[in-house]
Amino acid sequence: MTASAGVLYLMPNALDFGTADASAGLSDRIPLGVLRVAARLEHWLCENAKTTRAFLKRVEAVCPLALPLQQISIVELPRPPKGRAEPAAFDATGLLAPLLAGHDLGLLSEAGLPAVADPGSLVVAAAHAAQKRVIALPGASSITLAIAASGLNGQSFAFLGYLPIDADERNARIRELETISRRHKQTQVTIETPYRNAALLAALVAQLQPTTMLSVSIGLTLASESTRSDPVSRWRVLPGAVPADVPAVFSFLAR
Amino acid sequence: MTASAGVLYLMPNALDFGTADASAGLSDRIPLGVLRVAARLEHWLCENAKTTRAFLKRVEAVCPLALPLQQISIVELPRPPKGRAEPAAFDATGLLAPLLAGHDLGLLSEAGLPAVADPGSLVVAAAHAAQKRVIALPGASSITLAIAASGLNGQSFAFLGYLPIDADERNARIRELETISRRHKQTQVTIETPYRNAALLAALVAQLQPTTMLSVSIGLTLASESTRSDPVSRWRVLPGAVPADVPAVFSFLAR
Repeated sequence: MTASAGVLYLMPNALDFGTADASAGLSDRIPLGVLRVAARLEHWLCENAKTTRAFLKRVEAVCPLALPLQQISIVELPRPPKGRAEPAAFDATGLLAPLLAGHDLGLLSEAGLPAVADPGSLVVAAAHAAQKRVIALPGASSITLAIAASGLNGQSFAFLGYLPIDADERNARIRELETISRRHKQTQVTIETPYRNAALLAALVAQLQPTTMLSVSIGLTLASESTRSDPVSRWRVLPGAVPADVPAVFSFLAR
Repeated sequence: MTASAGVLYLMPNALDFGTADASAGLSDRIPLGVLRVAARLEHWLCENAKTTRAFLKRVEAVCPLALPLQQISIVELPRPPKGRAEPAAFDATGLLAPLLAGHDLGLLSEAGLPAVADPGSLVVAAAHAAQKRVIALPGASSITLAIAASGLNGQSFAFLGYLPIDADERNARIRELETISRRHKQTQVTIETPYRNAALLAALVAQLQPTTMLSVSIGLTLASESTRSDPVSRWRVLPGAVPADVPAVFSFLAR
């Protein structure tokens, strides 16, 4: 095996993590061509080995795995506990050992695309630094799905990650982002851990101008998927509810 | 059929438009569950009726269509000629007539997700204004795939659409975006019509600081897919080529 062999595959996951919809077949949500690649990989990097094994069992229901599941190498990325902390820098090159030895390696997210709103970009950067080929397999990100579903400006948008938890800081940040949105006609997109969804929605409805458009997508790609896009003035008259156990994406555009 | 029936489906397209790879089966690139929805829709809005018929023929090779192709209603969005002009405002509600009559309606892009870096958001906004349900079916956007493949910051990024064509304006804009990128640790993402890819790459390599990371993804999801991520200093020593007939996505992050 030559040193130049070995590809880092960025493997999309379904967006149904931890929901009742996760019992559905993966072929409804991930292209067959992508599932075929997943089925033949013998080395994985991921956030959580247990959920990666669950993912591979879902893959196996569609395509036979090249190796028995217990013989597949699954290594977790070091990372801080779930939350908004930046992942600490780590030795990504060490994690790439199978790739550097010439094997294909899969990088999997808990939901959607790895390294988008998610750890993993240090691993991708290390693969580039080692001159290895990186292939992003086609899959959905909740961010771009939410922008499509919002009806807001999809020609210019910013994804901001998480807003501050402290209420005063968060309110100030929302007003700052609204100014940027107005100046650049740029849709602003943010996410929250589900149990804080309701607090974030309340803050957005309270802080944004009445004419600003606010869109909330809940449970994208799930059977219960919904997107509501309304001016803030209407959100004030007709309040919305966001469940505390389903992912949501919040987008707004000042007018 | 009640007035509340009828869903606007945002239908992802493959990213292989106009390339030799478009002869491959769609099931390699689009989930079967999504192709099944495409096969049963009888009303479509799109950028181009001819390429939509080609898409539906690719769908038909996987799932039988509910109606013969020539009986499927395909209506084009009004829009300016290809290029960077903002689509003129138009009467989106008129285009939604099938939806308002209670039928499901599909909105299809030429590549990737409709209404992301693409016309169509006015149609989505009009559907929300008419209180119709909007469902974004899971599919890839070249923007989020490029961010994943870049290894740059995927926790904060901005998609800017097209940069100015005029060289002086473009150079000034690149420097302005690099300042924003440095201040907010925000990855900046832009696209170009393929025949201007080489000029954009040359401008980025000339204008950005040597330490800024520049990533170029060419032909995402195609067999020829490649992503190169290097500091600008290395792009200067080892220039890159971008084909004039394949879509590319350009990302950078100041350090």
